[in-house]
Amino acid sequence: MAEPIDFYFDFSSPYGYLVSEKIDALAAQHGRKVRWHPILLGVIFKTTGSAPLTLQHPAKAAYYVGDFARSARFLGVPFKQPSRFPLPTQVAARAYYWLHGQDCALARQFAHAVYRALFVEDRDISDPETIFEISAKNAIDRSILEPALQSPEIKARLKDEVDQAMARGVFGSPTVIIDGETFFGADRLPQIERWLATGGF
Amino acid sequence: MAEPIDFYFDFSSPYGYLVSEKIDALAAQHGRKVRWHPILLGVIFKTTGSAPLTLQHPAKAAYYVGDFARSARFLGVPFKQPSRFPLPTQVAARAYYWLHGQDCALARQFAHAVYRALFVEDRDISDPETIFEISAKNAIDRSILEPALQSPEIKARLKDEVDQAMARGVFGSPTVIIDGETFFGADRLPQIERWLATGGF
Repeated sequence: MAEPIDFYFDFSSPYGYLVSEKIDALAAQHGRKVRWHPILLGVIFKTTGSAPLTLQHPAKAAYYVGDFARSARFLGVPFKQPSRFPLPTQVAARAYYWLHGQDCALARQFAHAVYRALFVEDRDISDPETIFEISAKNAIDRSILEPALQSPEIKARLKDEVDQAMARGVFGSPTVIIDGETFFGADRLPQIERWLATGGF
Repeated sequence: MAEPIDFYFDFSSPYGYLVSEKIDALAAQHGRKVRWHPILLGVIFKTTGSAPLTLQHPAKAAYYVGDFARSARFLGVPFKQPSRFPLPTQVAARAYYWLHGQDCALARQFAHAVYRALFVEDRDISDPETIFEISAKNAIDRSILEPALQSPEIKARLKDEVDQAMARGVFGSPTVIIDGETFFGADRLPQIERWLATGGF
């Protein structure tokens, strides 16, 4: 059986959200599973000297805000530009990794719910209360989740994931790695599809 | 008849080269012409605070060098990473605008020859001698071209084109503008195609 592919993303990344709505089905068509890795772009950008697209030069920021929505329409994915953007995502990422240790399928469901809360419902996913509400809707017990998010193990797990991502050359979100081949950006979905179909080109 | 679409590019831009090999045929399929506008990314990057992809963080630079070649294979366009890269392109851009004033079709042929000289034959297109050789192969008389490149009119024309591009929000190469809608990057070719086919989405 072929190795799972790796999907690195930040919960505040619009193009990460677009890929999150496509990658599992695309991989499944080619007999592959996907390992999801929420990471923190804030940490990575400090190392690479990058900045979020909407905090760059006004011409660039304006283009990308338009392109997020247009790319979503192009891919048939619902999208609304969040009013708080970008925003911190460590609570969501820590919750994901804790959940993943309990129940992989539930963690995946939670990740979709977080992304849709930000990019469809315009909710403030940096607020722990939002994360607890999303969790409750997915039958996750707040009285267990809340202390877990403060545990040294979960903090270390997220830090490790970010470090490992950087060690693999990840510099932005979304990044998909297939058998050692790296694809950056939602606009690489057609290349990802061909790579999965052909084993390389 | 529909308005021509605008194609802004720098002669040192690998993704600009990829679009140059596709855009005329794509536009023609939808009854459109293309206006080509060589511009100078060096000037634009001073305003936007950007840097060439290969001069950014090593992880990013390494990814993009791989992606130039992979994207070329994906699109079926011959490509070889130039040994001098990036490099200044004002001589090529001035020659293009001067030629365009003489003979549009010849200017287009010259632009293709310059791009292929850099990205297929690994030639130093920043050297005026290379530009004169390419011109000679396209039956352009050096004794007329050489002084024309130093004329105030041609220098002003290139400056105007760069200024107009920035006024239209162009911040990188390639940028394609269709009826006021802006598409940045060779990876936007599928969106350009759908936009031309449907008039917007």
